[in-house]
Amino acid sequence: MPTRSMLAAIALSTALLACAQTSAQVATSPTPAASQASPQQAAYRPEFGTMWTFDAPPIDYWRRTYNFAPDQRWLDKVRLASVRLPNCSASFVSSRGLVMTNHHCARACIESTSPSDSSYMETGFAAKSITEEKKCAGLYVDQLQSIENVTTRIRSAVTGTTPAEQASQRGAVITQIQDECNQQTRLTCQVVTLYHGGIYSLYRYRRFSDLRLVMAPEGEVAFFGGDPDNFTYPRYDLDVTLLRVYENDRPFTPSEYLRWSRNGAVENELIFVVGNPGSTGRLNTIAQMEFLRDVSYPATLAGYERSLGVYAELARGDTAAARRYQNDVFGYENSFKAVTGYRTGLLDSLQMATKREFERDFRARIAADPKLQAEYGASWDAIAAAQRELATFNPLLRYHSFAGGSRLLTLASQTVRAVLESSKPDAQRLTAYRGPGLNTVRAAVSANVAIDTAFERLALAAQLRAAQAELPADDPFLRAALGGRTPEAVAALAVQGTRMRDSTFRISLLNGGAAAVAASTDPIIVLARNIDPFNRTVTARAAALNAIIASNAEKIGQAMFAAYGTALPPDATFSLRISDGIVKGFPMNGTIAPYKTTFYGLYERSAAFDNKVPFRIPPRWAERKNRLDLATPYNFVSTNDIIGGNSGSPLINKNAEVVGLAFDSNIEGIANRFIFTTDVARTVSVHSRGIVEALRKVYDATSVADELEGR
Amino acid sequence: MPTRSMLAAIALSTALLACAQTSAQVATSPTPAASQASPQQAAYRPEFGTMWTFDAPPIDYWRRTYNFAPDQRWLDKVRLASVRLPNCSASFVSSRGLVMTNHHCARACIESTSPSDSSYMETGFAAKSITEEKKCAGLYVDQLQSIENVTTRIRSAVTGTTPAEQASQRGAVITQIQDECNQQTRLTCQVVTLYHGGIYSLYRYRRFSDLRLVMAPEGEVAFFGGDPDNFTYPRYDLDVTLLRVYENDRPFTPSEYLRWSRNGAVENELIFVVGNPGSTGRLNTIAQMEFLRDVSYPATLAGYERSLGVYAELARGDTAAARRYQNDVFGYENSFKAVTGYRTGLLDSLQMATKREFERDFRARIAADPKLQAEYGASWDAIAAAQRELATFNPLLRYHSFAGGSRLLTLASQTVRAVLESSKPDAQRLTAYRGPGLNTVRAAVSANVAIDTAFERLALAAQLRAAQAELPADDPFLRAALGGRTPEAVAALAVQGTRMRDSTFRISLLNGGAAAVAASTDPIIVLARNIDPFNRTVTARAAALNAIIASNAEKIGQAMFAAYGTALPPDATFSLRISDGIVKGFPMNGTIAPYKTTFYGLYERSAAFDNKVPFRIPPRWAERKNRLDLATPYNFVSTNDIIGGNSGSPLINKNAEVVGLAFDSNIEGIANRFIFTTDVARTVSVHSRGIVEALRKVYDATSVADELEGR
Repeated sequence: MPTRSMLAAIALSTALLACAQTSAQVATSPTPAASQASPQQAAYRPEFGTMWTFDAPPIDYWRRTYNFAPDQRWLDKVRLASVRLPNCSASFVSSRGLVMTNHHCARACIESTSPSDSSYMETGFAAKSITEEKKCAGLYVDQLQSIENVTTRIRSAVTGTTPAEQASQRGAVITQIQDECNQQTRLTCQVVTLYHGGIYSLYRYRRFSDLRLVMAPEGEVAFFGGDPDNFTYPRYDLDVTLLRVYENDRPFTPSEYLRWSRNGAVENELIFVVGNPGSTGRLNTIAQMEFLRDVSYPATLAGYERSLGVYAELARGDTAAARRYQNDVFGYENSFKAVTGYRTGLLDSLQMATKREFERDFRARIAADPKLQAEYGASWDAIAAAQRELATFNPLLRYHSFAGGSRLLTLASQTVRAVLESSKPDAQRLTAYRGPGLNTVRAAVSANVAIDTAFERLALAAQLRAAQAELPADDPFLRAALGGRTPEAVAALAVQGTRMRDSTFRISLLNGGAAAVAASTDPIIVLARNIDPFNRTVTARAAALNAIIASNAEKIGQAMFAAYGTALPPDATFSLRISDGIVKGFPMNGTIAPYKTTFYGLYERSAAFDNKVPFRIPPRWAERKNRLDLATPYNFVSTNDIIGGNSGSPLINKNAEVVGLAFDSNIEGIANRFIFTTDVARTVSVHSRGIVEALRKVYDATSVADELEGR
Repeated sequence: MPTRSMLAAIALSTALLACAQTSAQVATSPTPAASQASPQQAAYRPEFGTMWTFDAPPIDYWRRTYNFAPDQRWLDKVRLASVRLPNCSASFVSSRGLVMTNHHCARACIESTSPSDSSYMETGFAAKSITEEKKCAGLYVDQLQSIENVTTRIRSAVTGTTPAEQASQRGAVITQIQDECNQQTRLTCQVVTLYHGGIYSLYRYRRFSDLRLVMAPEGEVAFFGGDPDNFTYPRYDLDVTLLRVYENDRPFTPSEYLRWSRNGAVENELIFVVGNPGSTGRLNTIAQMEFLRDVSYPATLAGYERSLGVYAELARGDTAAARRYQNDVFGYENSFKAVTGYRTGLLDSLQMATKREFERDFRARIAADPKLQAEYGASWDAIAAAQRELATFNPLLRYHSFAGGSRLLTLASQTVRAVLESSKPDAQRLTAYRGPGLNTVRAAVSANVAIDTAFERLALAAQLRAAQAELPADDPFLRAALGGRTPEAVAALAVQGTRMRDSTFRISLLNGGAAAVAASTDPIIVLARNIDPFNRTVTARAAALNAIIASNAEKIGQAMFAAYGTALPPDATFSLRISDGIVKGFPMNGTIAPYKTTFYGLYERSAAFDNKVPFRIPPRWAERKNRLDLATPYNFVSTNDIIGGNSGSPLINKNAEVVGLAFDSNIEGIANRFIFTTDVARTVSVHSRGIVEALRKVYDATSVADELEGR
């Protein structure tokens, strides 16, 4: 389900993914951190981007490219000054524990600290003194203390012969490593799987759990331009929030923090982003990329279009409904933007040719070593075969498994399955219902959620119509779902006649178990029951193929590390990375996008749209306009490599001084998920000078500005 | 040869084309103006755009679409308030003869009236009083007095059976009509060929030849953003110049002029552009469009790239050269932009499908009437066959005829030919050397022009290399041109050893005639002599095919008028048209381009580029910034249909009041040359409020501003 700000959403979802991946895991082996020289002196390849780990900084590459080679002290300082929020990045920016992140990363805190009769999202907030700073309930940041390579220990624990056995042993040893570390160090320990298992690294974090809100601008200026301007540049967003870390109810004094640059980002300057990119797919094989490009993404986009069609129908001639669904529509439009962007990179034949050339080189390196060839050589073809087979039944998978669209049908399907699966031994259940999964599903079904009947009816009918259009006429699923009736009739009956809107009814079915579900005449339960066997068959078939792809993708990650070592950075894993880049404009729409924008542009874009939402200037910004030096740099772009999870990352210069705050990619940069390029792809950041100018002139936050500037 | 501002260039070239087409022509037949109802009540098709003639205004379509149906008085007023410059459009905007046009349309006047020690292009100019207004030597404007349909008289004069005979008779009767009209009315009369001969209309103009410069802004603000921003939007250009028409040394009082709107252009408002679009190709057949798309434009673009490669080589490591060639490079880059834009429309499969569907409908209408079918039915296939044949020898045509690239070789080829052709009877000469053509060529050869030897050598070598790469190895042209040597050796010898840089040498060859040319050992004359036979053969072959295309294109124009009447507007002919449109932003680069910009944006873009050229603000604009209301509308976009020649057209509202001044298309609009669309294509204009704000606050031109606003 897409959300309003896609970058935040990606941050969130990839963060959770990354966490889920590592949370059930841990270790101790004392092998040294990987060296930065690759096993075969393989050269850096720009299409893999620049998300470097702190234990393998590419010093030679930096020296060669920029004539800059930071020492270990520089690297340690930068690492310790950086912190990770649950789904974003951040940094210490003062000696008294000020932490800088994006406004969109701190929304929950900004909302929860608001007074009962107003919202800081609307009005903004700036503590007049330290006593006014507001505690953010439940928020914490993690500071990376050390990294230890635990690959050998994990490898030696994995002795099984089947993938399932190996996975179980790997999970067990990772959990053991993490638990030992947690107990010994009292730190928060996570084993990070790099290169899909090429290296396992134990990351030890110090956690700070008392964060307080110091300053947050109005949502209208933090997210100025709203969804239309999201993912784009030129941009005019003050997407910043300042928090403060406390310890024992007093401001914390960090051992390291980032000082504020006097000039901020300057055109053509080398700068670094330090943060936690969530997830990239740069190690995907050509077969995986082609599947996404030709099968998966087109289907996803068609699904978004279907949902948008439903909202358009609901809003037709009904302005109240149009307003009500506006956020959902924006969300889908943004997801459409993002997925179209991912696909754009895959559609670029030049970029794909680069990738093909890499795959040839990679496979040749593996083939040249009989041992590597025996271990990894078959993985590409195995993935390609599985992707090909997945492509053959993709419409079945999409329609039989019936994901997305109608919420009621999802709830009904989950109810039917939870009841059936709970009667089986854990290992025989469908994947999502194993271990804690069953309870997660039961909780989801039991929760009190709002159901929009009008939407449900149209969405269910649209799903059924799409199934009818794409599946063969004699598909048994269609017979089971429609029973000869029209999609509209089935949807009307199922949605109008159901009691599944009511959570107490859902809970009663869960409690009633298999008998209650089997006896139910509730029309949407009947529908869910009728299609469940098809759903089950196709899901299992896809799961088996995806397991083949996953285990071979792991092998390819390991093969990559074997062939290239750390000459190429690993895919993103929501762990700390440092990315080099240059402050630089780009060709856009027939002309040039400048490397920076200024406050003039904020007022321009507002005036050009007659100050209409989402281009409205908050009252304080209108009133205090004449105080501002409008030519102050406000946002800027650079060629650094970021993705969701990097939101809130500081941008620093060679002196490790703050020059900006990353908050988005331009739309051209979305395609960097798979193949990194810098022709037109850019990181979009708030300029450090713009932050201070706003603090001083708009928010009267002189003491905070002085604190940042070290005055 | 591309020029700096492509829109001006198009205006110029298409204007000259249009003039050339009609200047040798004249008539009297008293048939009434075409009615606005079409012969078969055919419906309007949006892909043909909205360049309506004043004798066939689409009143029903306007009423249906906008609920607006102007009466004849409104139309007469608007027509008489509009005037035509030699290569642009303009309008009367005050009771004392003020004429508004673009800055880029009045450059010659602005330059020629400048003091000897400075340039109004740099400093701008605003007459403090009427006595300071500066006469623009040689400039005139034409005001359209009346239109008369002379189709019947022309048709009845064309009795011949061969195309050559018909063309000659047509030319003669047109000249006669124009001459009679000039003598009888003392007006300037032109027969305009609409629908490629579907209608002939006699346009009678009153000419005003005393124009004086009243106000022109600095070039830097008129063309702010320079070549990068050319053809783009959002835009921030004060592309305006005010002139005044004088009669008997006193300001002229026009019978009609456009009053100034109080609000200027407002979002979603219906507005009209009134002006003289130069040339469109909307009546081209699919075969013609495909030839442009697949053969002609790619070759043109490759030629531009070749020239850009030469400049890049010249500039490599030589900053002085880089500066010297900067304008040429900009020119080619802009032409590249424009032609890429034309081609974009043809590459759009949806747009081409619309066009195909039209062609099917069109041909079916013709086929339905045996008389029309007999006259026109074969024309599409005839054109397609000729285009196919042209495509088969396009590389030969390009390289054997050797156009573009080396200027010296062009001069040498012209010298060789002028001498050979002058010995033949006129009718047997190559087309370009018939009638006044020969003298035009001789004058071009005799003129004193600067030759850049370094460029010549590289350009000639590049041309020869391209010929080598694209022609078969055994092409006899290659043997004749290279004689076994490398392109570089031939170019070096030809350029270094020639005396053709010197105009007196060229004149001596012309005067020496065939004997002098035959005896010459000048290496580039030898080269030109050697390739002339190939050149001649291929040019004649192409000319014969192009004559077939031209005569059938004429038939199709006539067929279109027969099938659709004036339901579809004719292709542009640099004669007065009125186009309807809506003030409206558009989706751009992932977000929305606003319908207008403001002065804030001018200062934003300047500040974002650190006030570097071409984003530098003139000193007066920096000094007087605080006087301006920065939120004043400055530029804006609308869906009106314009093309080169429309530069300087007024935009008016339903009250015939000035709301803006057209000066460009956005880059998305360039593709409208062949297929008109309004999804993202826009006319870019200066907003009337921006003009007055600048006059009052920046130029202290209070009296002129009062005159415009009728105060």
